[in-house]
Amino acid sequence: MHARLADRMQRASEEASAQGFDALVLAPSPDMAYLTGYAPMLLERPTLLVLRADREPVMLVPELERALAAEAPGASTIEVVGWIDGDDPYAEAARILPGSGRIAVGDRLWAGHLLGLQRTVPDLSFEPAAPVIGHLRAVKDDDELAALRRAARGADESFRQICTMSFLGRREEEIAADLAELLVRNGHARADFTIVASGPNAASPHHEPGGRTILPHDAVVMDFGGELGGYYSDTTRTVVVGAAPPGFERIYETVRRAQTAACEAVRPGITAQEIDRVARRIIDEAGLGERFIHRTGHGIGLELHEPPYIVEGNDWILEPGTTFSVEPGVYLDGESGVRIEDIVVVTADGVDRLNRSTRELQIVE
Amino acid sequence: MHARLADRMQRASEEASAQGFDALVLAPSPDMAYLTGYAPMLLERPTLLVLRADREPVMLVPELERALAAEAPGASTIEVVGWIDGDDPYAEAARILPGSGRIAVGDRLWAGHLLGLQRTVPDLSFEPAAPVIGHLRAVKDDDELAALRRAARGADESFRQICTMSFLGRREEEIAADLAELLVRNGHARADFTIVASGPNAASPHHEPGGRTILPHDAVVMDFGGELGGYYSDTTRTVVVGAAPPGFERIYETVRRAQTAACEAVRPGITAQEIDRVARRIIDEAGLGERFIHRTGHGIGLELHEPPYIVEGNDWILEPGTTFSVEPGVYLDGESGVRIEDIVVVTADGVDRLNRSTRELQIVE
Repeated sequence: MHARLADRMQRASEEASAQGFDALVLAPSPDMAYLTGYAPMLLERPTLLVLRADREPVMLVPELERALAAEAPGASTIEVVGWIDGDDPYAEAARILPGSGRIAVGDRLWAGHLLGLQRTVPDLSFEPAAPVIGHLRAVKDDDELAALRRAARGADESFRQICTMSFLGRREEEIAADLAELLVRNGHARADFTIVASGPNAASPHHEPGGRTILPHDAVVMDFGGELGGYYSDTTRTVVVGAAPPGFERIYETVRRAQTAACEAVRPGITAQEIDRVARRIIDEAGLGERFIHRTGHGIGLELHEPPYIVEGNDWILEPGTTFSVEPGVYLDGESGVRIEDIVVVTADGVDRLNRSTRELQIVE
Repeated sequence: MHARLADRMQRASEEASAQGFDALVLAPSPDMAYLTGYAPMLLERPTLLVLRADREPVMLVPELERALAAEAPGASTIEVVGWIDGDDPYAEAARILPGSGRIAVGDRLWAGHLLGLQRTVPDLSFEPAAPVIGHLRAVKDDDELAALRRAARGADESFRQICTMSFLGRREEEIAADLAELLVRNGHARADFTIVASGPNAASPHHEPGGRTILPHDAVVMDFGGELGGYYSDTTRTVVVGAAPPGFERIYETVRRAQTAACEAVRPGITAQEIDRVARRIIDEAGLGERFIHRTGHGIGLELHEPPYIVEGNDWILEPGTTFSVEPGVYLDGESGVRIEDIVVVTADGVDRLNRSTRELQIVE
């Protein structure tokens, strides 16, 4: 593990340099965990990892967490420096940053800390680190892919089991609680989200499951996932209760065809936006384009959502080992909605779906 | 609830104006939850609440979360505006921000978003919003105090119960799991942290409980808490297994005297740093000042750590209704450590402790 982390830090540092940055600065985040294995509780005292091409990695930590940081998996190749409560942590950070130049800064650093650094070292110019670290993290190694496969299997099995349970007359929040329990029973460390959106609520993609009682002929969108071995699952299926409402099957089939076509279009060398266009064209042609109100997908790994985003305007070229969701949807305000989502991985010559749940419309009771 | 939230937004907006800001901008965070009741899952698409003195509150949300945002408790007085995947959210934000002037920006906005705003509206000057919203949130109303009292009682009861359980020969992580279960059994929605630091590990204030087996004469620092009704508990007690190690009781008594004196010094009109000085003076006089490696405390409420911070250099004047921790500690590298922590509230003429667990040294088995 130490060697893998040291290698990742080395590559991040080289990539930052290649992009003309004088340093890469990261806060506690999946970026930091990826490079160092260090994932302290995120609180208000700044912790900053500074990578510079010309020297060893340095991590500035609150003095009371110095012992904790020194135990991190990647700490053997990091100089850990403590700052003491009452001192100015940004002045301490200035000592380990260049005095001028371009700094790539992790997306998740809190604005309060970025403002502190900008005020303290006004000659530095800060830019998002996503083009550096996002590309590195997007291509998964074999262990990462194995973890994502395990998570996907656990989510698939949870879907299979929830379909055997009763929906009619129960509240959305009860189904959501069942799904959360199933995810844990199927190997997840925890469930992170369990969207259960029934009837008209299915038109709200990020609906918060509530007290609505599920009725006959409801469509129910279930979008759920959690963490397993540090990596996320995320899958969506839409089912109907008893039988589909009038006109629903045409919409379902449109989304299913769009999702299938987008998945099948994935191969090395294609761009993220081309995958989005494949899904969108099919939904547009069915006259439902206005009702597909979100992008087609997002990368997944140590974060539930991470680069690459499968969206118009993103010319990111997909490479083997990259994992992301393919999840077109159609939402009819006040009526209903459909979304189907699988995680896929780009392979040497095409694509592999990590989720294998059936995409045939399931009727539940 | 609507009226209370509308009032809070009004006061935040007025305070921002009074401090010379042209707008207050907040991301999903405890700040946003305090003002609007809206607490969406924190993901990469920006959601921004913009408060300006001269107009109604506006919230910019990802289009797919517009229905969700419109259901938020405070939404009736907020104009909710959606931005669509593929569009530039910072350009959309620019339409609802002033074209120039000073913007108070929430501490927890992600740096990636702040950089996007700075790039898009270069004539805006961004500063931390903590002096605006932190002061507002620091003074709790009766409902908030009741929630904090319930959380403190649940934590106290968990401490009482853990002391009746067995420590000797068990691993830190087992005690930590017991504590987490006790917090939930005593009313918490979830346990957020359960530090169990035994023997030499007690010298690491934020120690991650691990596989160390607890031995006779170990000191064990337990610092734990979680959320109950949206508000946090946070308390620390240090116990010994069988009997105290040599020299330990003198250190324990020093910390206990420092903690008692600091609590007793709390009253309206005193500054945060004066409370820190009271605790520090006693530990200094015992020759242990170098081993008290952190501030004396932190505010608590919707966040585990929030303003005011009880630290040298902070001349924040304490007002009735302000809640914070008082938690001096002494840490002897490679040997042992002691910390004692209670949450207190400033009253009209003094102080009230929310935690009531005994601070006499407890001997566990």
